[in-house]
Amino acid sequence: MKLVRYGEPGQEKPGLIDAEGALRDLSAHVPDITGATLDEATLDRLRALDPAELPPVAGTPRLGACVGDIGKYLCIGLNYSDHAAETGLPIPEHPILFMKANSAIVGPNDDVYLPRGSESSDWEVELGVVIGKPAKYVSEAEALDYVAGYCVCNDVSERHFQTQLSGQWTKGKSCDTFGPTGPWMVTRDEIADVQNLSMWLDVNGKRMQNGSTKTMIFTVAQIVAHLSELFTLQPGDVISTGTPPGVGMGMKPEPVYLKPGDVMEVGIEGLGEQRQDVKMDA
Amino acid sequence: MKLVRYGEPGQEKPGLIDAEGALRDLSAHVPDITGATLDEATLDRLRALDPAELPPVAGTPRLGACVGDIGKYLCIGLNYSDHAAETGLPIPEHPILFMKANSAIVGPNDDVYLPRGSESSDWEVELGVVIGKPAKYVSEAEALDYVAGYCVCNDVSERHFQTQLSGQWTKGKSCDTFGPTGPWMVTRDEIADVQNLSMWLDVNGKRMQNGSTKTMIFTVAQIVAHLSELFTLQPGDVISTGTPPGVGMGMKPEPVYLKPGDVMEVGIEGLGEQRQDVKMDA
Repeated sequence: MKLVRYGEPGQEKPGLIDAEGALRDLSAHVPDITGATLDEATLDRLRALDPAELPPVAGTPRLGACVGDIGKYLCIGLNYSDHAAETGLPIPEHPILFMKANSAIVGPNDDVYLPRGSESSDWEVELGVVIGKPAKYVSEAEALDYVAGYCVCNDVSERHFQTQLSGQWTKGKSCDTFGPTGPWMVTRDEIADVQNLSMWLDVNGKRMQNGSTKTMIFTVAQIVAHLSELFTLQPGDVISTGTPPGVGMGMKPEPVYLKPGDVMEVGIEGLGEQRQDVKMDA
Repeated sequence: MKLVRYGEPGQEKPGLIDAEGALRDLSAHVPDITGATLDEATLDRLRALDPAELPPVAGTPRLGACVGDIGKYLCIGLNYSDHAAETGLPIPEHPILFMKANSAIVGPNDDVYLPRGSESSDWEVELGVVIGKPAKYVSEAEALDYVAGYCVCNDVSERHFQTQLSGQWTKGKSCDTFGPTGPWMVTRDEIADVQNLSMWLDVNGKRMQNGSTKTMIFTVAQIVAHLSELFTLQPGDVISTGTPPGVGMGMKPEPVYLKPGDVMEVGIEGLGEQRQDVKMDA
């Protein structure tokens, strides 16, 4: 199932994308797509519906983040061996964790606003993992049982804020609109091997990132198990699992950063595509 | 006004502490104490009530975190000149920011559970700042206008998780129950000078921390202004503004950490006191 949330910000309704790619309304069956509706029983109930009998949604409404009321937006840093090489930083011994503020989360195709004065904002296509049930002290072997599904994330990053304002990456990751999430959450059963998905990111039509979840240093299962030793992963929490090579910071001979007027297109095999116009905050 | 939330976890009701220190019920006037009820108009409406006419609450119910539905729990690191000296780390050029996961937030007197295997969990009394209205690009001069009130925070910290698991402090700050917040939110008008409040923390009756907001490196106004250049501070967001000297990590001749059976008592002048029993996670 491809679950979506459509409508204006703060007023999104639940929907699904049918086999023909059409948007259908789920409002009669769940109030929203959030941690409260990602349990297996609810997902099974939605799977049992005949999409052809769900009301089609007219037009092409805005899509919101594919999960609402996200509790924790957890991000893993330096998690691709080829990206770690690009940055020149050593392979981490444990998953590097930082948080993106929830107030940064936007829909997959919403505008991305550079904060005032920003000259070093960057892109990062990432696999998002959506937690389906509370996970605490879970083993790697059972970790994926706690995952409801997957989505595309663009972990937009202001590199000056991230690295030049006295430390801790969250400053550069939490700017308003820096968390495009979606277009849809694909339930786990539809992804045969989450460690073998191609992923890409284009800026102004030029391919900048071209990678695969194959080169992750820590797998999704390892990340879920590790984080669950630190705290409870709650339903609706999202883990953005790191980015492959090709970020602007790593460009040669010098870094390339986002500027107003740029367009980012961001995709992962089987999980759909995002598109953001870049603007400058007023 | 001293605003509180009382009742079982997830079912807290709004209340206030009257001039005699008694708990009175506000349920007839606001649905909860959250970002949605911290605007000046709502606080003025509550101020206009006669506390003597509000229903007294019988017994001594559990208190929840003094703000519900906290969007961002932002923490400032190394923000006291005397604590920076204690750690041996340099004075930061900008406020150090990290986030505590919302899932760590508990009431002021709830039990604190050490995560399995934890041998280096520590205490940190901190002044909490509760945001009352959206703040973006605000100046230091106007910053306090965006503050609804203040509270006590204990920024409980697992030092091994914080520093030995490949970086970014959030790992050691986000364990379940590591965010006792309250007992009440004191509205800003009742705090004459937020930069002149004594603060303390006892472990098993022994005074470990004894400081004052006087020695903050970055004032509350400077912190609010700085963060508002990075992202929008939303109503109900909490900023925990750093800790004075006396944490376990800094003890001589060797660090002293929390163990099951310990009791923490945590207070700030004018903002009330917390008390937590320390237990080991099963």
